[in-house]
This record gives sequence, C-alpha cells and structure tokens, in this order.
Amino acid sequence: MTFERENVRRLAGYVPGEQPTRAVAKLNTNENPFPPSDAVRAALKEVDGEMLRHYPDPTAWAFRTEAARLHGLTPDHIIATNGGDELLRLALTTFLPPGAPLGLADPSYSLCPVLAAIHGSPKYAVPLHADWSAPADIPRRWNKARAKLAILVNPHAPSGRLTSVDELAAIARAFKGVLVIDEAYVDFVDPEISHNTIGLVSEFDNVLLLRTMSKGYSLAGLRLGYGIGSPGLIAPMLSKTKDSYNVDAVAQKLGEAALRHRAEAVRTWEYVRAERSRMVRELSARGFACAPSQANFLLATVPGSSGTAEGLLRRLAGEGIFVRWFNQDRLRDSLRISIGTQDENSALLTAVDGLMQGGV
Amino acid sequence: MTFERENVRRLAGYVPGEQPTRAVAKLNTNENPFPPSDAVRAALKEVDGEMLRHYPDPTAWAFRTEAARLHGLTPDHIIATNGGDELLRLALTTFLPPGAPLGLADPSYSLCPVLAAIHGSPKYAVPLHADWSAPADIPRRWNKARAKLAILVNPHAPSGRLTSVDELAAIARAFKGVLVIDEAYVDFVDPEISHNTIGLVSEFDNVLLLRTMSKGYSLAGLRLGYGIGSPGLIAPMLSKTKDSYNVDAVAQKLGEAALRHRAEAVRTWEYVRAERSRMVRELSARGFACAPSQANFLLATVPGSSGTAEGLLRRLAGEGIFVRWFNQDRLRDSLRISIGTQDENSALLTAVDGLMQGGV
Repeated sequence: MTFERENVRRLAGYVPGEQPTRAVAKLNTNENPFPPSDAVRAALKEVDGEMLRHYPDPTAWAFRTEAARLHGLTPDHIIATNGGDELLRLALTTFLPPGAPLGLADPSYSLCPVLAAIHGSPKYAVPLHADWSAPADIPRRWNKARAKLAILVNPHAPSGRLTSVDELAAIARAFKGVLVIDEAYVDFVDPEISHNTIGLVSEFDNVLLLRTMSKGYSLAGLRLGYGIGSPGLIAPMLSKTKDSYNVDAVAQKLGEAALRHRAEAVRTWEYVRAERSRMVRELSARGFACAPSQANFLLATVPGSSGTAEGLLRRLAGEGIFVRWFNQDRLRDSLRISIGTQDENSALLTAVDGLMQGGV
Repeated sequence: MTFERENVRRLAGYVPGEQPTRAVAKLNTNENPFPPSDAVRAALKEVDGEMLRHYPDPTAWAFRTEAARLHGLTPDHIIATNGGDELLRLALTTFLPPGAPLGLADPSYSLCPVLAAIHGSPKYAVPLHADWSAPADIPRRWNKARAKLAILVNPHAPSGRLTSVDELAAIARAFKGVLVIDEAYVDFVDPEISHNTIGLVSEFDNVLLLRTMSKGYSLAGLRLGYGIGSPGLIAPMLSKTKDSYNVDAVAQKLGEAALRHRAEAVRTWEYVRAERSRMVRELSARGFACAPSQANFLLATVPGSSGTAEGLLRRLAGEGIFVRWFNQDRLRDSLRISIGTQDENSALLTAVDGLMQGGV
C-alpha cells in the first residue's frame, strides 16, 4: 500500500550532482575550489561539547547581525536558512497557496519545478531568449498566470548570464507577487560591473534575495544560506514557517566568522574570475561555445566534432573529471563546467584534447 | 502590503524554549545534562576544510548505515533529518494532502498543531485520559475524521508517560493512515521495561518512528534526527520531498560516531533515570504531583501553597533556574522540569524550598 500524496507519487525528485569519492577534477557542483578561510577554521576549533549539547539560537541572531552589518541593513531584513534551498522552499510555504502557479524562467535551477510539484502547485515557466536573457514581459506573463511567487536565478543557472539591477527593478515593479532573486553565484560577479541588488530590498517590499555560504565561502558542507528582504517578508518565515531550529550551532558560528573575515574568500573569487576568463578562451579555441558567465561555472556547448555532450560527460568521467549535463531541451548539447583550480581546469582541457585527438 | 498566505497570516508560530545565556540550572528544553561523548569530540577534530567545502552526502549513507546496524535493519528503513522536527514536517508534506486533518492527541508536542496550520490542514486532536493515556478508540476516531496522518509522542510530551508496544501495535493496526511515533525521549526509558518498538516497523507498513540525537546523544546543537519505517514510507521522503542536502556534513559525521560508540551516552541515560527517581521523591515530598515519566523530564503539578505555576516559573527564573510552562488547558497548573545534573536538580529544590518558606 502506498501512503504518498498523489502529487508526491507522480513527481520525480531533484537529482543532486554526483559526489564522487575520488576525482581528478570535481567540476560538477559549483563548489569553491579552495577551502574555507583560516578564520572559519579557527572558529571550528572553538566548537565544544556545550555548544553541541544545547539547542542553537532559533533565529541565528549573531549570524544575522553580521550579515546585516555587511549589507548595511538591520537584522530584521535577514533570515538564516539550512542552505539556500531551504529559503526557496520557505518562500513557497509562506507566500504561495498550493495550487497557485510558481513563476519561473525556463531553463532555470532544476530544483524549482520540483519544489512546485511537492507543494502541489503548477509551474509557469517563461522561456528565456536564446542569449538566456528574460523577456521584458516576464512579470506581466507571471501576473496573467496569477503566480503569487516567482524565482529568478541571477547570475542565471545554468548559463551564468547576469541580469542587471535595472532590469530586476523593472521586473520587481511590475510583478504583483513575491520575487525571489536567487543570488547563489553573485559573489563571482566581476566587481567592475558594480552589480549591487541590496537597494532593491529597500525599494521593493516584494523582493527576497537569496544568498548562500556554500559557494563563495566554501561552506557547502555546512548548509547555510540566508535571505534578505523587507521585514514584512522576513518575519513570517522567521517566526512562523521555518523549522524551529533550522540552522545548527556550528553553521551559525562558522558562518558568522566567514562573513566577518571575508578577505580570504574575496581572493578566491578573484582567482575564479581569472580562471573563468582563461577557460572561456581555452574552450572557445577548442570549438566550444561558452555563454558569457558571471558565475563560477560555464555553460559550454559541445562542438559536433566532440560527439554528444552526454557522450563527452561520460568519457570525461571515465578519466576522473566530473562535470554536469542536463537532459532537457536547449541544454542537451552543453556541459556545465564548474571553475576549479588551475590544475583541475587544465586537467579538463588536457582530457578534452585527448578525447578529441582520439577521434571521438 | 502583506504577501503571506492566509493560513500563515492567521497562525501563531511555535515558541521554542528560552535559551538563556547564563543560568544556574537550565531545565527548560530537555537537553542532556552531559556533553557529547569523547568519540563525538574526536570526530569533531577530524572535520576539515575539504569536508566543509564540498556538498555533504545528500542521503547520509554512512550515518544511515550505522543507524540501521544499531536497529538490525537495512539503510532503506532509515532517513536522516535536520533534527526530528524536520521529519515531522516531511511526514505532513509527504503523506497529508493539505486540508486533510492531522490526527493528534491533546495535549501533545506543541509544534504539531503549528505544523498542521502551516500545511493548511486542520488538526483533529483526541483528548487524552486524566492519566495522559490514549483512549483505546483513538485510531477509530482519527479514521472517522479522515486523518491520513497522525502523530503520537511516546514517551508522551509533556507528561513523560509511556504507551506500551502492544498498545501502539493496536493503534497502528486500526489506523488507516501513517502513524508517526515521536520517540524523541525513548532513550530514557527504563531498560527493565524492555520497551522496543523496532518490530512495529516490520509488522506495519504505516509506522514511522522518529528518533533524535538531540537528547540522548547530547547533540541538540547539531540538528540531527532520523526516521525508521518501511522502505515504502522512507523512499518518497528520501528521494523526493526532503531538501536536497538536508543534513550537513558535520552532523552526519558526528552522528555516526555517536551511534557507533554509544556506551558513554548510555551511562548518561542511567544517570538521568536515577536523578528522575530522586526528583519524583523530592518534589512529591514538597507537595508536587508528578506524572509517572519515562522521559528526561517531569510534569509536576504545583501545589496550591506555591501559588500558580506561572508565578513559580517566573520566580524560579529570577533565581536563574529555567523550567517550562505551557499556557494551555490541563497544563496551566504544572511545570515541565528537565532532569539536569545532581547540582542543577538540587538547586531547583533549594530554590523551591526558599520560595515556599518565603510564604508565596
């Protein structure tokens, strides 16, 4: 006998990227290629039995205070979550009546349609242009579909394309529901662009920014993200819909240290940007077409001479080099390649060269 | 403008017990009075930057294998969760269509009605008898209300009363939905009773046991619990409805060590049971009526000579002694007192003596 709800029975779960135990280059889940900062490791050494024994602060006050200080806001603009994924789920739980559509772009973070299906809501996904930009009428189309909540990933996943703050403001202004801007990769945006979305939170009471400590701060293993929004958006999630103790004490402590002492992490972002530029050049020279990326990954269309993207994925995996492939329209001919260390990136290029010479 | 769903707007959130930064005796949130074992602290020392940098195992295979070994089951009977609270939420998400009633006992864990309200489901709570036992017809009443999911806390919270395995089997047999048995406090049951519910999982495909590492294993700060059930119950939560990476890498590693090397934790349970017996004697001698408890807390009805329970709560807090009071029917005249160290428990008794002499 099955006890699952009908919508749960029908849905296919999200499939996380593989976590191989041994890899020459693990470039499949967009982790930071460097370990967390010395400050984080020092904070880890201070974790003791008393901290583990007691319940954590249910609202992560110290971490939220540090995040608020960083962004020039007050802590009531911040909620800490068990990874960014929890914030996405909480946004559905809090703002989207089951059955009402979730506004999305297509393609997007593949978790989002799964969250809609779990919630019992249809998705209403507006196709992106060929350059992965959002159509100007996306907020009107979401409104027409009666979406109460919409999620945009920016920089976009899986392409890395950045939508400007002005474009985001126009969308937020026209959209009648809550707009989540998933900024999981925003730390890797070139500072010369001066992309800063924090002002949107003050300007629009329907904007919820998602940040994660997983990528920029090398803390994917900890599960810590946070939301930034007007107090009216944050309060119901913080005091009503999140699990009572959603973020553990270790994550709160290490996350606070990571934000307070950012310089080392910032240097890893500079490194990733330099390697990103190099990889665009190198992959382009080999016939791959890379979408312009402001994230720590590239969406690279595989040249016909290299066979199918799926085939290349498998052959690379055979050499211990893991990248990501999405079996869906418009992405099937591409690989998403995380930016790793110079050695990892070069190992990928060498493997590609070998496979191309091999006449694949 | 408010963007909250109507049901969220109306509900009052769960209120966690206070986490005072300084306390003479913190006896309000049922934590283990001793720190986690040496084995756990040794595992903590092995946490390194690489573990933090990478995403954790999404299904917590090593932890689940260890839990399965402990219970004589296979890992497909186990799901690891971000504290036991996540398992309760996942049970609603997975098995209860929004709008369908959640079966409960009244009183019960005060989070459960909040979860129902967030989910958009009414609660159908069957009043417990005066001795906090469940009426024999509770499964039939849940069935009649068309509850698809029901939660029993056993040992019961906040009384500590234990329902026997035979009684639980009768409820599971008669109930047509999924029966969650929240065993957060089961580690503190007297072993002489030989209370073992694991057999229920093989006998009934609708039984889901909840265990937590928070209390018995002194890991409340980590957020780690697990569910035990038939593979048909576990699979949809594990592969569909839980957040992709719901349990962080540190919790997985320390939790595995805690289960593998249990002897030290088991000794803390013996200590708590001995202190529980002492506190029943001492509180009874002072006119408090304690419900028979198999948990690490006592529900103690305050004698009239001590004034109201709420008043006593406040006066104890004034002396740095924190206990819990529930402002609801049938509980308003009582305090829930966690079992602490001998010193903490004695400090509570001394404070009570002083307050009673003071003619309150």
